[in-house]
Amino acid sequence: MTRTIKTQPLTPTVFAPFGDVLDCAGEPDKMINRGLCARYHDRAALDFTDGRAGISLFKAQLRALPFALDLIERHPNGSQAFIPMGLDPFLVIAAENPDATPQAFLTDAGQAINFHKGTWHGVLTPLSGSGLFAVVDRVGPGANLEEHHFKTPWIIQA
Amino acid sequence: MTRTIKTQPLTPTVFAPFGDVLDCAGEPDKMINRGLCARYHDRAALDFTDGRAGISLFKAQLRALPFALDLIERHPNGSQAFIPMGLDPFLVIAAENPDATPQAFLTDAGQAINFHKGTWHGVLTPLSGSGLFAVVDRVGPGANLEEHHFKTPWIIQA
Repeated sequence: MTRTIKTQPLTPTVFAPFGDVLDCAGEPDKMINRGLCARYHDRAALDFTDGRAGISLFKAQLRALPFALDLIERHPNGSQAFIPMGLDPFLVIAAENPDATPQAFLTDAGQAINFHKGTWHGVLTPLSGSGLFAVVDRVGPGANLEEHHFKTPWIIQA
Repeated sequence: MTRTIKTQPLTPTVFAPFGDVLDCAGEPDKMINRGLCARYHDRAALDFTDGRAGISLFKAQLRALPFALDLIERHPNGSQAFIPMGLDPFLVIAAENPDATPQAFLTDAGQAINFHKGTWHGVLTPLSGSGLFAVVDRVGPGANLEEHHFKTPWIIQA
């Protein structure tokens, strides 16, 4: 049996069950620097049960569609934001729970995302560009990772 | 009187008095996702006297060299990280104090920076690209900005 999922464009509405979309849609919250810079303020729900926020860099190998999804994971103790350090779209995968059909989103240039604490998601899957991301997630002691393996992979298609 | 400053390449060593350089130089701290992703862990000293870390987006107008620097600022209550959401180099300006000669750095593709709490710095000055940055800084009540105006601007040259 082949199970397929089609990607959909990433919007705040469709992504709301899983996290935040960070982009410059709409009016900025504030103009700063004498009107030369627009600030879109505090757009991610950073949420850590313990530890603290930290900034790490991830350099991920590029993947391609169709993509066989055999693993999702979650971080029970904290949110996790992926900020692309390039304008290439990337693939975002999330699931309400391991038994639900995962959803696959394609970002637009200039979009970052923040998975809410405990959200099931696929690992970082850039499709083009440098594969370089800044990640804002929990820094602290102890394990903060649960994995779920699919016996039958989901095939994600454009 | 014209006062000029030449830009220098951004490296962790020259930037150490002012903050952190975040890039993928050297060995990663950890390979994750079955070896498909390198994690450079916790590379910024996030430091807030109160409030909390937040992620905002800044969309800044492009500037050009030579650049007339007539203003520096600092945030006494928190660090501030600038993460470019593109691979274009940007200009980073910092000063030990308002009476010291400012220093100007040009980033390389894939570098982000974090100004330590209270560091005097120039406003965000992208020179090319989209002008889009993710900013990790303090979210909290009250003013967190001091400005210093130079009577005679510094001229920053390539």
